[in-house]
Amino acid sequence: MLAIGLMSGTSLDGIDAVLCEVTGFGENTKIRQISFCTCEIPLNIKEKIRRCCANEKITTDLICSLNFELGEQFALAALSVCHKAGINSKDVAFIASHGQTIYHIPHAYGDCVPSTLQIGESAIIAQRCQCPVISNFRVKDMAVGGEGAPLVPYSEFILYRKEDEAVALQNIGGIGNVTVLPAGCTIDNVYAFDTGPGNMIIDEAMRKLYRKSYDENGLIASKGRIIENLKDELMKHSYLNLKPPKTTGREMFGEPFTDELLKCYQGENKEDIIATLTWFTAYSIAESYRKFVLPNHQLSEVILGGGGAHNATLKKMIENELPNIKILTQEDKGYSSDAKEAIAFVILGNETMHQHFSNVPNATGAKQKVILGNITYPN
Amino acid sequence: MLAIGLMSGTSLDGIDAVLCEVTGFGENTKIRQISFCTCEIPLNIKEKIRRCCANEKITTDLICSLNFELGEQFALAALSVCHKAGINSKDVAFIASHGQTIYHIPHAYGDCVPSTLQIGESAIIAQRCQCPVISNFRVKDMAVGGEGAPLVPYSEFILYRKEDEAVALQNIGGIGNVTVLPAGCTIDNVYAFDTGPGNMIIDEAMRKLYRKSYDENGLIASKGRIIENLKDELMKHSYLNLKPPKTTGREMFGEPFTDELLKCYQGENKEDIIATLTWFTAYSIAESYRKFVLPNHQLSEVILGGGGAHNATLKKMIENELPNIKILTQEDKGYSSDAKEAIAFVILGNETMHQHFSNVPNATGAKQKVILGNITYPN
Repeated sequence: MLAIGLMSGTSLDGIDAVLCEVTGFGENTKIRQISFCTCEIPLNIKEKIRRCCANEKITTDLICSLNFELGEQFALAALSVCHKAGINSKDVAFIASHGQTIYHIPHAYGDCVPSTLQIGESAIIAQRCQCPVISNFRVKDMAVGGEGAPLVPYSEFILYRKEDEAVALQNIGGIGNVTVLPAGCTIDNVYAFDTGPGNMIIDEAMRKLYRKSYDENGLIASKGRIIENLKDELMKHSYLNLKPPKTTGREMFGEPFTDELLKCYQGENKEDIIATLTWFTAYSIAESYRKFVLPNHQLSEVILGGGGAHNATLKKMIENELPNIKILTQEDKGYSSDAKEAIAFVILGNETMHQHFSNVPNATGAKQKVILGNITYPN
Repeated sequence: MLAIGLMSGTSLDGIDAVLCEVTGFGENTKIRQISFCTCEIPLNIKEKIRRCCANEKITTDLICSLNFELGEQFALAALSVCHKAGINSKDVAFIASHGQTIYHIPHAYGDCVPSTLQIGESAIIAQRCQCPVISNFRVKDMAVGGEGAPLVPYSEFILYRKEDEAVALQNIGGIGNVTVLPAGCTIDNVYAFDTGPGNMIIDEAMRKLYRKSYDENGLIASKGRIIENLKDELMKHSYLNLKPPKTTGREMFGEPFTDELLKCYQGENKEDIIATLTWFTAYSIAESYRKFVLPNHQLSEVILGGGGAHNATLKKMIENELPNIKILTQEDKGYSSDAKEAIAFVILGNETMHQHFSNVPNATGAKQKVILGNITYPN
């Protein structure tokens, strides 16, 4: 059957819409990408999302309205990907919509309980596209004590597991995180953890040193040399020794961390700083495997994903750190990096339509497996 | 099968939970109330709701967290009504949860599109009670151009329609609104409109003149006499001549309206003012019928609901205005006034479980009939 996945990340790069053919469910799922597109989010809506996410002072009507406005945008994205493929959305069995995260509280603080809030009204999407919509995937995992993230390990298990070899899916977003699929694993053997910084430190240093948002293709890092003192200091970071499951974020590797490094090493060549920070990202990934994956699993390949997969210098450095392991991209495996998350939600939505669980307790910390999301029928 | 309805109104009087036995669907629905309870909302949660509803400056994390906190409260209410009846919630076929409205935008203004926002996370309710939950009823009606309210006319049609006589359901909340069920009607003949003020003017005057929130049982009104000048002025109110469908609210009969009246008639006896305002409420109801119902329908009975049904003086005045029509309460018909709205959501949820529509386009202004709500499965 036909199914659509819709994803919009916190970077607000646009709404990813993928149209797939799916058959079966659970371990028997077969999925094939038919069409993909990314739709811009109008500027005024982006600004509203930004205000919500930044936890600025707002009024309730902003969120009330934005939920509906985003619903229309998600519907347009779904209709676009159908149009591109020459398919009528009525013929789609379901749309799985992640929604737009406007807040995520993995741990209680102050007056707030652990919770998460994705918006983009499913009733609007269902009605405009005339097909069932599954949405609100993360809340159910949190209802059983999970952090509501990551949810991709389930789809990675479906797409990439091998009978005879372990596979690692390394995502390099702001933070690096890995999903490990042991050889011949069942879903219960799958585990995931944050390896450390992804692009976060590199990007922050690029902003401060070059007024650029990232090191395109790793070009600047490729021209620099490793600063041994900085390397030695970074290698000692305590996060590397923490045992999984573990998560990290902006509070550990954000702006203040990078600012402090740049202050201490301000006499150094800028290219060398970017090169050394890129090396540290590669090292933190490789070291995670050496410490917590390789002792238990014969790892034959690592498949990179996320924006960092486009950083050729970073990829090269990971290869140098892990000489006996193939470092691949989604494209090497016949998948699209850009469509990966949207496809993941097609797989999760398909499980929900079959009333089958799709969270991975080893990855989210949930107490049990649960059916994710809710279903909105059209008409 | 067993089903639970959960309702929490904007007055924050508590969460109403009703357990019912339901069979069939659509016009063949049969429903029987088994157990009912109202659960207090903790003060800190009430305060958070109040801040959202008042459109005060808040941050997104408040709503993110409150959605989960309210989910737990709704789950507790559902478990309470089961406990009261000696039933395990696992044996309940579905819970229909209205949620807590924290904002409703029937018409676009400024930067906001028509939209509505009910919270009280269904994933939490489904998981705690281990049964499917239907929620978010109002959004789908708005997705097809309706105002998302009123939704009770569908359940009133199911419960009260008669083959040989027209029936009017008069709700007296802050605003008065009526649902008219013509003799032998189908759902397409049902219509509803706001008759004018309900308790809004009386309550506001009680606050200003007596520092009380309402005229209990209509006692003060019963002691007063009609002020002819005030009566004449009120009778001329333009809303009475507007043809249905029509809606009104605080912008017309709220605090400024009452303040102006009290200023003009400040020399008058306080009891007489309350009596005259109570009379005007009765008159606006009766006049709506005389102008817009009785010319087309032989009306044999009016069934009162809402807080105003407990105002004996108001009821008496309506009887005087409509001498040939029986003025009844929910209790006279064997139903519970308190449980009425929660039961309405059992009926609406039952339709959704059968993938059957339950909005009434004549009442909400929707362009079509649609299946309301979405379904969250446990586990």
